[in-house]
Amino acid sequence: MYTKRNYSLKQILLWTRKDIFYFVILSTVPVILYTVFRWYWLHLPWLPISLIGTAVAFIIGFKNNASYDRLWEARKVWGGIVNTSRSLTIMLNDYVNNEHAKKILSDQELFEIRKTFILRHIAWMSSLRHALRTPKSWEAEPRKKTGIDYRKHLEIREQKYSLEEELKGYLSEEEKDYVLSKKNKQAACLNLQSKHLSALKTEGYVWEFAHLEIEKMFVELFTLQGKVERIKNFPYPRQFATLNKFFVWIFVILLPFGMMNEFDKIGIIIVESMEQYKPYPNSGFHYLIELMGHYFIWFTVPFSVIISWVFNTMERVGE
Amino acid sequence: MYTKRNYSLKQILLWTRKDIFYFVILSTVPVILYTVFRWYWLHLPWLPISLIGTAVAFIIGFKNNASYDRLWEARKVWGGIVNTSRSLTIMLNDYVNNEHAKKILSDQELFEIRKTFILRHIAWMSSLRHALRTPKSWEAEPRKKTGIDYRKHLEIREQKYSLEEELKGYLSEEEKDYVLSKKNKQAACLNLQSKHLSALKTEGYVWEFAHLEIEKMFVELFTLQGKVERIKNFPYPRQFATLNKFFVWIFVILLPFGMMNEFDKIGIIIVESMEQYKPYPNSGFHYLIELMGHYFIWFTVPFSVIISWVFNTMERVGE
Amino acid sequence: MYTKRNYSLKQILLWTRKDIFYFVILSTVPVILYTVFRWYWLHLPWLPISLIGTAVAFIIGFKNNASYDRLWEARKVWGGIVNTSRSLTIMLNDYVNNEHAKKILSDQELFEIRKTFILRHIAWMSSLRHALRTPKSWEAEPRKKTGIDYRKHLEIREQKYSLEEELKGYLSEEEKDYVLSKKNKQAACLNLQSKHLSALKTEGYVWEFAHLEIEKMFVELFTLQGKVERIKNFPYPRQFATLNKFFVWIFVILLPFGMMNEFDKIGIIIVESMEQYKPYPNSGFHYLIELMGHYFIWFTVPFSVIISWVFNTMERVGE
Amino acid sequence: MYTKRNYSLKQILLWTRKDIFYFVILSTVPVILYTVFRWYWLHLPWLPISLIGTAVAFIIGFKNNASYDRLWEARKVWGGIVNTSRSLTIMLNDYVNNEHAKKILSDQELFEIRKTFILRHIAWMSSLRHALRTPKSWEAEPRKKTGIDYRKHLEIREQKYSLEEELKGYLSEEEKDYVLSKKNKQAACLNLQSKHLSALKTEGYVWEFAHLEIEKMFVELFTLQGKVERIKNFPYPRQFATLNKFFVWIFVILLPFGMMNEFDKIGIIIVESMEQYKPYPNSGFHYLIELMGHYFIWFTVPFSVIISWVFNTMERVGE
Amino acid sequence: MYTKRNYSLKQILLWTRKDIFYFVILSTVPVILYTVFRWYWLHLPWLPISLIGTAVAFIIGFKNNASYDRLWEARKVWGGIVNTSRSLTIMLNDYVNNEHAKKILSDQELFEIRKTFILRHIAWMSSLRHALRTPKSWEAEPRKKTGIDYRKHLEIREQKYSLEEELKGYLSEEEKDYVLSKKNKQAACLNLQSKHLSALKTEGYVWEFAHLEIEKMFVELFTLQGKVERIKNFPYPRQFATLNKFFVWIFVILLPFGMMNEFDKIGIIIVESMEQYKPYPNSGFHYLIELMGHYFIWFTVPFSVIISWVFNTMERVGE
Repeated sequence: MYTKRNYSLKQILLWTRKDIFYFVILSTVPVILYTVFRWYWLHLPWLPISLIGTAVAFIIGFKNNASYDRLWEARKVWGGIVNTSRSLTIMLNDYVNNEHAKKILSDQELFEIRKTFILRHIAWMSSLRHALRTPKSWEAEPRKKTGIDYRKHLEIREQKYSLEEELKGYLSEEEKDYVLSKKNKQAACLNLQSKHLSALKTEGYVWEFAHLEIEKMFVELFTLQGKVERIKNFPYPRQFATLNKFFVWIFVILLPFGMMNEFDKIGIIIVESMEQYKPYPNSGFHYLIELMGHYFIWFTVPFSVIISWVFNTMERVGE
Repeated sequence: MYTKRNYSLKQILLWTRKDIFYFVILSTVPVILYTVFRWYWLHLPWLPISLIGTAVAFIIGFKNNASYDRLWEARKVWGGIVNTSRSLTIMLNDYVNNEHAKKILSDQELFEIRKTFILRHIAWMSSLRHALRTPKSWEAEPRKKTGIDYRKHLEIREQKYSLEEELKGYLSEEEKDYVLSKKNKQAACLNLQSKHLSALKTEGYVWEFAHLEIEKMFVELFTLQGKVERIKNFPYPRQFATLNKFFVWIFVILLPFGMMNEFDKIGIIIVESMEQYKPYPNSGFHYLIELMGHYFIWFTVPFSVIISWVFNTMERVGE
Repeated sequence: MYTKRNYSLKQILLWTRKDIFYFVILSTVPVILYTVFRWYWLHLPWLPISLIGTAVAFIIGFKNNASYDRLWEARKVWGGIVNTSRSLTIMLNDYVNNEHAKKILSDQELFEIRKTFILRHIAWMSSLRHALRTPKSWEAEPRKKTGIDYRKHLEIREQKYSLEEELKGYLSEEEKDYVLSKKNKQAACLNLQSKHLSALKTEGYVWEFAHLEIEKMFVELFTLQGKVERIKNFPYPRQFATLNKFFVWIFVILLPFGMMNEFDKIGIIIVESMEQYKPYPNSGFHYLIELMGHYFIWFTVPFSVIISWVFNTMERVGE
Repeated sequence: MYTKRNYSLKQILLWTRKDIFYFVILSTVPVILYTVFRWYWLHLPWLPISLIGTAVAFIIGFKNNASYDRLWEARKVWGGIVNTSRSLTIMLNDYVNNEHAKKILSDQELFEIRKTFILRHIAWMSSLRHALRTPKSWEAEPRKKTGIDYRKHLEIREQKYSLEEELKGYLSEEEKDYVLSKKNKQAACLNLQSKHLSALKTEGYVWEFAHLEIEKMFVELFTLQGKVERIKNFPYPRQFATLNKFFVWIFVILLPFGMMNEFDKIGIIIVESMEQYKPYPNSGFHYLIELMGHYFIWFTVPFSVIISWVFNTMERVGE
Repeated sequence: MYTKRNYSLKQILLWTRKDIFYFVILSTVPVILYTVFRWYWLHLPWLPISLIGTAVAFIIGFKNNASYDRLWEARKVWGGIVNTSRSLTIMLNDYVNNEHAKKILSDQELFEIRKTFILRHIAWMSSLRHALRTPKSWEAEPRKKTGIDYRKHLEIREQKYSLEEELKGYLSEEEKDYVLSKKNKQAACLNLQSKHLSALKTEGYVWEFAHLEIEKMFVELFTLQGKVERIKNFPYPRQFATLNKFFVWIFVILLPFGMMNEFDKIGIIIVESMEQYKPYPNSGFHYLIELMGHYFIWFTVPFSVIISWVFNTMERVGE
């Protein structure tokens, strides 16, 4: 998780540098056509473009809302895993004992049993972490160049160590082989837990009713695991995401044509208003402003890049 | 589920090709009336149309939000079925045993019992899948031509095999006949499960309190099945959906009339501004631009098709 | 529930015919005052009206969202009743038996006991259905004329049969009298259920712990009944609903004044632009267009009726 | 709860009469400055004001949404209290009996025990009701004059009878003194309930496991009580509420300046267009319209009062 | 919690004084460039800026909605802690007794046991409170100067007393050392609770099944603690927050350029309309107005400061 208070402007510009490049091209081309090639008919009325802009802003707003909800839900599930882990620990401490045992164990032996469960629980979490790092076909970041650059600075534990290395010491050799042989490794860990607990109950180290309660914890962990996998495997619906992207690009492409219109109008007004100052003394200075008016249409470029950037970044941030 | 990162533009254009066709007609007709038949009174002021556009964008935003929530809820329920299935499995493993049994069974026999439950659970899931594929009167896709074309590429398992074929091997012959004779086949499967479990408890292979816990799993499965059926059977309220469609079409129909106005204005400005260049040398080129100005109103067609397409596709994607 | 894919345009126009009538009057009156009585000062600037329109669209959007949530919640509760009913059925099958019985009953007798519960459960549902059909003071539909027309085509079971008729066969005579004597008849049914179950437990036909589980089902049914009653008894807060209505009508009343302004401007432009065509040959045709320009303001009527209709229908659909 | 279908226009105007008065002043002052004192520079451009208007409409929309959610949650909690009360009743009926009793009680005595619980439960509800009527520092209504007028017509039970009077008959004298001596009287009632139940369990009138279930009901009632108190004690965050108010007032204050601009323009157009009719016969009538044009700016007052009223009432209704 | 009805205008202005200062500079600079340095080309068209404004208003609306939801959730968790504390208290009263005890304790001794639990529960709450006051890297308030000024008036208990001081009297010396030695002190407290309870169960002062119920309360407290820590540790996603800030500032920076345009236009109109009054008598007065018209562009400053302030404060309030 990113923990500084704010991203710096530089980071964001770097992250969006490719888009900015496109926007510059997209807005320069029509201005060149207009001024150099004199395609004076290249105007588009601003108001319909503005309507698309409003509609797009609206859709992006809803999308980002949904993205935030997903993020929040993911964070809740993660918090749930933390809570359940703590609860499991106190339950193991309180419910694994000699009270109903057929053969009394020493405190050290009971401690070893509890420790086995805790270590296996950590193995479950490691497996889950690795499963979540598997790349999915709809995830953009890892494949994009800017994403790769960005990641160089991050060291991702799951890409440095294999799951096999990470499980060492947390599972017995036999258990490790069993877990690694399964497709859903985290579910295999939980199966081992429940089997072990069941054996303990049969021998009386866990009271039958306490067994039901701990079993509920494993059911809860299955639920949380399932939720995590669901969020991982179910992206923001592709049809929505694709269309949002299209709408933003339609808006971005049309934008400079509409802006040119507005800037051209202002340019004309500047030129005209300067005409009346012509007979005045420092006409050299006024000539400069008049020139500015003539080339005023070029302001379309930075301005439409800014607006395109705002809309596109808004859209991408929620991805 | 669609798993590529994005739909291609081609796919989306194909999917909306019929609508695009209508939009072209809807926007061409008024332009022809205006230019060819010289109905110069065919203007409409842009601002009220823009207001409708904003209102419609707003409503569609809310609708898509609701659609997304439905989708997300459906995905949650499906995740819930996965989780409950896993939990049911570990419960059957841990709770079906000889501890309280009147007559001790071999491990193989206990395994067979558990297997019967698991197979019957799969039968329940197959029945549920088939029930969800039944077409409903308010679902558009399967009947629309574009939808049919689209589906040719998808092979839907539920349409290839009958439920009877799929249940083979998962239920005994007797059970299969019972399930197929019922209207709600998935509920019948769960009834069989609970009856079998009850018998096991009477013979002591399931401890009375464990019985209560497993029974709770069946209650949970009933709940999940009910939720799935609810989402299937309760579409986005028809009155909202219909009116949204109407509003979009009212907007789409009025759009070209308002756009014509704006484009006509720009056209006139172009023509006028070209007048002053007339005495200049390359007047042939300027004449071309002036011509462009005269026919500028025809830009209404592509532009209003784009806006119509954005609004309509936005509306349809949430359906 | 309405199950066709879409309402037809005709149905919706019929449903809103009274409003449409008002809108025609509201927009015709100012146009007549302007054109016939020559109150040329009757203009209003469009932009502030547009702002009201945006604000109103926004508020209606939120309201419809809330309406949809209510509907969805109601549907969930209804799904919950279905699920709980099924769960209750399998519980009665599994938990009502001779295992802990003081006096062994035949299978037939046990079946009769279970059947009594199921029938009484149906009686509970019938009572609930009838309670939900009681008209409330804030419900508009049944009293409005259009609503009455619309309902003629629907045959509402709850208005055709009295509750007393519907309970026949589901409750014993004694129980029926008891239930009908109570104010909250559905709660009375559940009280009977729990009392009967309690008696069964005392005689040993229901194991004490199973009793606790089934009792939880009745608690769940009480909860669901309470939720249904809450949704029925707590309408969308009246202060919000009333003000929404007011805001829509303020917008609808001001609308034609602002539109007249815009249409008048266009009319003047048409007339002016026709002036220059006057010396041309087919001036008869141009004269027609000029006439059209003079009366262009009359387009305010259909156009403002359409916008009023869109906003008002949007508002009414969420009611 | 207000149960009529709609508030009348009169009620709402009365409720907002003070605000309307301010709006009249706020919009009259600039018009007087403009027309009487000829401060012709008092224009403000409309578009930025319109932007504030849109932003404010948006914020109010979200706020009202949040208000509605709070109201809905409050209603849910209230429904929860009803449901839990009913469930508690059937539990007391079913679980308080002689089955495990050390000393058999008569039916009448058991009935008396149950009745004590029910009466004490009513005492809990009365205490809760009184606690909710305590005025809080951030609640506006009771202190505002219009609020006081409005309340005269409502007779609030909690202000007519003291809690002490209301508890009479529901608690024994000793219990009543104990409850009234505590700060959180409703919690005290629940403590009494749980203590009494505990005593019943010790004497065997409540089975140990049933005791656990009923205790859960008291835990549930604590939860519901806590929720009710939370909604009461945690208003819509003051910083949001205050800023919303400020934003609305900034908008309301700027509004007439921007409107004046628009109305003045229209007025000028009217005057100008009348000029050309001057030579026509009924110039007296046209002179009237021209006069209307000259004073057209005064229409700013009613129009800006209406818009201010719409925005402000929207904001206040969600308070 | 802030408990007055509204913040005063003064408080809010103080809180935002630094931003206001920036806005004044940001809007004064372009006006000076325009008027003093005569950079007459410094216009920007208003409409695109207005579009950014709408989009930004929209995004801020969603963000504030999310902020409010977080606040509300935090309040719910806090309410949950209150409820669970009360429930724990009645459970300790009802379930800690001699009924299953191996060695009967006096009432005083049982009371002492319960008291130990309650005091340790308070220690848990104190630890949690202190943990929540730890500053996080993304929290702005404590470091900003205005924040520090503001806080001078608030006395924060957690900053005045160390946790060690606050735990005195609530935990035994031995327990206190154990708790303070742990990283997550609140979890350590709950571990002590559960260990103590477990010991009580072994000695029979808590019935085995009651033990399961109280243990569930500790699990619940772990859950609530985890939720509180989650809300504390997971801020509104930094990428959203940063971009919102950027978008607001882009809007604020562009704003004066667009406004200048509008005000300049009005100024020109005023000057022009005054021209025609020149020959009239009190031309001195009109000259004043004309002067006002010439300097009308300076109104850009206050007006754009107000709009910037509204947007920025809206954005900051949700932080």
